[in-house]
Amino acid sequence: MAICHHQPQFGISSSSFPFTTNLSNKSHLHLPSSFRCNISITRNLEPEPVYTCVKSFSPATVANLGPGFDFLGCAVDGIGDYVTLKVDPQVHPGEISITDISGTGNSAKKLSKNPMWNCAGIAAISVMKMLNIRSVGLSLSLEKGLPLGSGLGSSAASAAAAAIAVNEIFGGKLPALDLVMAGLESEAKVSGYHADNIAPAIMGGFVLVRSYDPLELIPLKFPVEKNLWFVLVNPEFEAPTKKMRAALPTEITMSHHIWNSSQAGALVAAVLQGDLIGFGKALSADKIVEPRRAPLIPGMDGVKKAALEAGAYGCTISGAGPTAVAVIDDEEKGREIGEKMVEAFMGEGNLKAVAMVKKLDRVGARLVSHN
Amino acid sequence: MAICHHQPQFGISSSSFPFTTNLSNKSHLHLPSSFRCNISITRNLEPEPVYTCVKSFSPATVANLGPGFDFLGCAVDGIGDYVTLKVDPQVHPGEISITDISGTGNSAKKLSKNPMWNCAGIAAISVMKMLNIRSVGLSLSLEKGLPLGSGLGSSAASAAAAAIAVNEIFGGKLPALDLVMAGLESEAKVSGYHADNIAPAIMGGFVLVRSYDPLELIPLKFPVEKNLWFVLVNPEFEAPTKKMRAALPTEITMSHHIWNSSQAGALVAAVLQGDLIGFGKALSADKIVEPRRAPLIPGMDGVKKAALEAGAYGCTISGAGPTAVAVIDDEEKGREIGEKMVEAFMGEGNLKAVAMVKKLDRVGARLVSHN
Repeated sequence: MAICHHQPQFGISSSSFPFTTNLSNKSHLHLPSSFRCNISITRNLEPEPVYTCVKSFSPATVANLGPGFDFLGCAVDGIGDYVTLKVDPQVHPGEISITDISGTGNSAKKLSKNPMWNCAGIAAISVMKMLNIRSVGLSLSLEKGLPLGSGLGSSAASAAAAAIAVNEIFGGKLPALDLVMAGLESEAKVSGYHADNIAPAIMGGFVLVRSYDPLELIPLKFPVEKNLWFVLVNPEFEAPTKKMRAALPTEITMSHHIWNSSQAGALVAAVLQGDLIGFGKALSADKIVEPRRAPLIPGMDGVKKAALEAGAYGCTISGAGPTAVAVIDDEEKGREIGEKMVEAFMGEGNLKAVAMVKKLDRVGARLVSHN
Repeated sequence: MAICHHQPQFGISSSSFPFTTNLSNKSHLHLPSSFRCNISITRNLEPEPVYTCVKSFSPATVANLGPGFDFLGCAVDGIGDYVTLKVDPQVHPGEISITDISGTGNSAKKLSKNPMWNCAGIAAISVMKMLNIRSVGLSLSLEKGLPLGSGLGSSAASAAAAAIAVNEIFGGKLPALDLVMAGLESEAKVSGYHADNIAPAIMGGFVLVRSYDPLELIPLKFPVEKNLWFVLVNPEFEAPTKKMRAALPTEITMSHHIWNSSQAGALVAAVLQGDLIGFGKALSADKIVEPRRAPLIPGMDGVKKAALEAGAYGCTISGAGPTAVAVIDDEEKGREIGEKMVEAFMGEGNLKAVAMVKKLDRVGARLVSHN
């Protein structure tokens, strides 16, 4: 039921999407109740803009989640990127111009304003192509709330915010799965062909990437009555995705495979059952990826130990790191855990770090204003 | 929440168990509502028999379920083993005697009546030890409804039926997790230390084995309003577990690991969400075990193809084979699929086969009568 296929053909879009009910109030997206995907051809229908200016937000995302390596991710609220998008007569019709990139830290300086080399730009162009925009030019400004290479889905957040902004300025014709496809195109160029950040960035909550060809995504609904807080501790340390990927083993023993697969199953069950203890336990139980990557992040083993000793249900590396993520059901307790983790990064890794305590984002990328 | 730990110490039993509500009507087992495990010492308390004779039944089980290799299994109703257990003054107190083994096919002739070498006997002795039975002798007769080495959890069914019979004749003092431990002791001696048959045989439904040390089991509740039928097609072919295990790869590529793990997650999600299409798809998607084992079962690839073409949602090898299992939501449709699978076993593997269409068993091993 909760699966949707996508044939990634330009101009052809699936017209429905398997969001679970907690997202049904996401009025700016087209979310039919049916889970079946019908194909509608949008090739010859160029929509007109319904707004002159929109501002969108996309949350940060935590990918991998321990044994969910490369196929599971979730969105965290209250931290992410903003995109402001305007209909701009100065821009050549059918094109997009990036006018401004702002934000704290290293993000703004390092990013290109060439839309072909910018994750927001690539996703925006992809959505414009899907919508067949030929008569309107757009200008985009990007406000980075996420540091680059932190393991919090920085590139996916920019892509998701841009994709949703373009879609919404033209009346929200495309379903979320198309926006994930657009974001995936961006991710492929910037950080590798993987959907475990872009899918939850756009859809919110937890998303399991079941397959890429065709793209099939399974939203996993964490029960609304349960609280889930993420303690995100970001050290001043560069852990490039490529280097973290090179650290992975190419071959895995059968016993490790069985162990990690069973933990992946337990992780999924814990999310759907709202079982925080089981979730934390599975999150912490990866025997394949974390043991290879943790030694590359100074102090990470000690940080995990400190988080668990301070009462976190589980702890692992967020994405490809270096951010450490711990989980808890109480915000105040999360702050205490964060302090211990920051201390451990300094004490065991000689790294300065900052802690944030953020809730599970159940909505995903969304409009925040429009004119 | 749905996890229970077990410290496998003789004489110490966990006094509660994480059954989900669909099993709460299983009145012959002690099923407290709490999921926490408290330890109670039964060492010095020898219970007295509350019946002179009991008859128990344990369902067959389908282990592995494709990408759930070695950690996932489920019970199927309407086929399994029976145990009749009597308080017998002729048997030395504290001991058990196997008086009779009956059943169709090869089962009865091949099994030892020495309780130390019989899966029902080993499990029964283990439960007697847990209960500290010293003053009562028991005689057991086993009625095999399952063929040996079929991939339908034959040894687990005998062990489960025996374990529950001994527990119940003494008033059902032990929680299900202890009975799984007793059955696991039997499985370890007969077919390898794995709980993916014995756990669902005793608990019913789907069970994920999260860890062995301590034993942690996660029941996965398939929604009660949904129908799930298994088409079980058993060919006349011997596929010994040891040979099927030797066919497994020792090393797995990272890409196969990620694929199978994501399918395991999707399988768990599909069970909990009652998504039969997703369940079938994940069931069929194993890239690690089935490709190695299927070629050892003549015609298996063709049987799978025939099942899917006939409308099954998914198909794979049941346990270590040679039984093929397909899934569907309609009994009549299941019969049609079964016929096609039987034809394919003959046409492509030159093997005679019989098909059965059985429902998901949501209860597990149970008493069927007592005096």
